[in-house]
Amino acid sequence: MKNTLLLTPGPVPIPNFVHEAIAKPVIHHRTSVFEAFYDELLSNFKYLFQTEKYVCSMMGSGTYGVEVAMYSLFRPENEILVVNNGKFSQRWADYGNLLGLKVTDLGKEWGRGVEPNEVLEAFEKMKTPKGVVLTHSETSTGGLIDLEEMAFSIRHIYPEMIIVVDAITSVGTIPFYFDEWQIDCAVVASQKALMNPAGTVAFALSERAEQTLINTHEADFRNLYNFLHWAKRKNYPYTPPVSLLFGLKAATDHIKSETLPKIWNKTHLAAKYFRNSIIELGGEIFAEKPSDSLTAFFIPSLNTTIMLNELENTFGLKLSGGQGELKGKIARISHMGMADIKAGRACINALTDLIYCID
Amino acid sequence: MKNTLLLTPGPVPIPNFVHEAIAKPVIHHRTSVFEAFYDELLSNFKYLFQTEKYVCSMMGSGTYGVEVAMYSLFRPENEILVVNNGKFSQRWADYGNLLGLKVTDLGKEWGRGVEPNEVLEAFEKMKTPKGVVLTHSETSTGGLIDLEEMAFSIRHIYPEMIIVVDAITSVGTIPFYFDEWQIDCAVVASQKALMNPAGTVAFALSERAEQTLINTHEADFRNLYNFLHWAKRKNYPYTPPVSLLFGLKAATDHIKSETLPKIWNKTHLAAKYFRNSIIELGGEIFAEKPSDSLTAFFIPSLNTTIMLNELENTFGLKLSGGQGELKGKIARISHMGMADIKAGRACINALTDLIYCID
Repeated sequence: MKNTLLLTPGPVPIPNFVHEAIAKPVIHHRTSVFEAFYDELLSNFKYLFQTEKYVCSMMGSGTYGVEVAMYSLFRPENEILVVNNGKFSQRWADYGNLLGLKVTDLGKEWGRGVEPNEVLEAFEKMKTPKGVVLTHSETSTGGLIDLEEMAFSIRHIYPEMIIVVDAITSVGTIPFYFDEWQIDCAVVASQKALMNPAGTVAFALSERAEQTLINTHEADFRNLYNFLHWAKRKNYPYTPPVSLLFGLKAATDHIKSETLPKIWNKTHLAAKYFRNSIIELGGEIFAEKPSDSLTAFFIPSLNTTIMLNELENTFGLKLSGGQGELKGKIARISHMGMADIKAGRACINALTDLIYCID
Repeated sequence: MKNTLLLTPGPVPIPNFVHEAIAKPVIHHRTSVFEAFYDELLSNFKYLFQTEKYVCSMMGSGTYGVEVAMYSLFRPENEILVVNNGKFSQRWADYGNLLGLKVTDLGKEWGRGVEPNEVLEAFEKMKTPKGVVLTHSETSTGGLIDLEEMAFSIRHIYPEMIIVVDAITSVGTIPFYFDEWQIDCAVVASQKALMNPAGTVAFALSERAEQTLINTHEADFRNLYNFLHWAKRKNYPYTPPVSLLFGLKAATDHIKSETLPKIWNKTHLAAKYFRNSIIELGGEIFAEKPSDSLTAFFIPSLNTTIMLNELENTFGLKLSGGQGELKGKIARISHMGMADIKAGRACINALTDLIYCID
C-alpha cells in the first residue's frame, strides 16, 4: 500500500508513540493493574472534556457513541429537538425517529449557521421538550455551533433540558468546557483529535444525565448506565479494548502535557492560515461559521473531484470530498492532531500549483 | 506494568506480527485501496468460518456481536430457544427477553452437556419456533456443544429454523464448518483465537439469514443488514477500525498459511495434554463435555482463589477464575493462539510445585 499523508477529518494519522502504546502486552481487565490504569485514563478524559463529573468509555465509532447517548438518555415518546444542518446532525434526527422519539427536526441548509433564537423558537412549538442534540463541529460541512452561547441560552430558559453534544470533532481540538457550559452529555471518538485508530468513544455525563439513565439490564449493550456504573469502579462491564485504551492513554497523556489551550491555539492558527490562503487563491469556505477542526472548501476554477484526485495522486495528500448531497461540491481537510499548519501549507502549495498549472 | 503470561481465555496475548500490522499507517476507508484490502480480509473470514456464503465485520466485543445477530435476525414476539448452560448462554436468554422475543430458556446446570433430544423436546413445547441460539464453546464453563450433531438434528426436523451460533471461542481454534453444518449465523470475536485486541467481531450469514434481515435504517447501528450490504461492496457503513482490521488481516493470513486442520489439531493436543495432567494431579475438569479451546478445572487439595493468586504472583501465569456463581470454584486456562502446549506445561509444572509444596 502506498503511503499518503492523511489529511481527512477522520481517520487521522496515528503518531508512533500511540502505536508503541497499542503494541504493549495486553493486560487482563479484571485486575487491579487494569483498574489503576483505567482510573488514570478516565482522569485524562475528564481533563479533555474539562469536567469534574462522570466519564466513561465504550467500544465503537463516533456514530455509535451518539446513538448510545440518545438511546440511554431518552425514552420512546420523549420530545427532542435536533439541530440539523449537515449529514451527521441529520443522522441524529433519523436515529431519534428510529428510537420512537418525537423528534422536532430543525432542518437548515447544510453549512448554514444556527442561532440560539432559532432553537428557542423551535422549543416553543413543542409540548414538553425533554432534550436537544447539538453537533458542535459538523464534520460533513466544517460548520460550527457557538456552543457556549447556545447552551447558555437554552439553559437560561430551560433549566432541566438534557443537552446532548456530538463533540466528535471538537473535544481535544477546539475550546470545550463541559461543566462551565452546563452540557449534560458529550461524546468524543478516538479517531479524530485523539490521534488513535477508530474503535473507542468516550462520554462525559452530568448529574442530570446520570439521573436520567435507567438500569435496564446488564445485557443491554447500548445502555450507558452499565458503562457508567462500571467506570465508577474503574472497569468495564464487558471485555474492554485494552490495546486501544493503551493508545488513548498515550495520546491523552500527550495532550495533557502539551495542554489544551496550546493545542486549541495551534488548531486555530492552522485553520485560520488555511482559510485565508484558500480565499487568497480565489476559493471559498463552505460553512457560514467555520469550525477550526476542519475546513470544507471549494475553488470555483477547479473541478473538485479532479482536484481531490490530483492532490492524492500527484502530491500524496489525501483529503475528503463531500458526503451525500455535497459529493463533488466540496473538499474537506483536517486541522486536528498531526494535520498541522505545515500539512495545511503543503496543501496550499499543491493547490497553487494546480491553479497556476505549474508543471 | 509487570509482564505476565496471559493464559486467560480472552483476552489472549497478541503476537508481534499482529502488533506490527496494527502499527501500519492508517488508510482512508472510502478508497479502492481499502476495498481491495477488505475484500482479502473478508475472504480470510470465509476460510475461518468455512463458508462460501456471506461474511461481514463490525466494531465491538463478542457479547455485542451476538446481541447484534439476535437483534437483526429476530423481531419482537418471535419465539426462540436459548440453550443455556453457562454465563454467556444465560446472557443470550436475558438479551432475547430484553428485545421482547418470546424466549424459551432451556436452562441447564452450568457445565452440563446438552443433547439434541433435549433441544427437540423443548421445540415441541413451543408454538412456532423461529430460531435457536447455541453457544458452541461456553467460555464460562469450558463446555462444548456437539454442534455438528446438534445442527443436523435440528435441521432434519426444522428445515427453516434460524440457527445462531456464538462461535466466539470456537472459530479458528476447534473444527467449525458453517456451510456443511448448515448454520445460519455465526459470530467470532477478535480477542480469542484471532490473537488480536478486543474490538472487532465477524459474522457469517446464510441466505436464509440474509433474507430475514430487514433494512430498517442507515442509522440503526445494530442492523446487520447495513453491514452486510456494505460488505458486499467491500466497505463499511461507518468509519471502520482500520488499524484493527490490519491486525486481523495479519492474524488470518497466518492462520490460513498454517491451515485450520493443523491449528485444530494443535489446540486439541494442548487441551488433551492439559486435561490429562490435571487429572493425574488429582484435579477435576469442570465441564461434562469439555471444549478444546479452554479448560475449566479445579484441584480439590488447593483453594482455587489462592491457587490463582500463586500462579500469577509466583509463576507469572495469569489464568481466569470462575464467573458469577462459579467465582472461587474453578480456574480457566486458554488453549488458543499463543497459549500452546508449552504454556500449558508451564502451568502444570507450577501446579505440581504448589501441590507438592516444592519451595
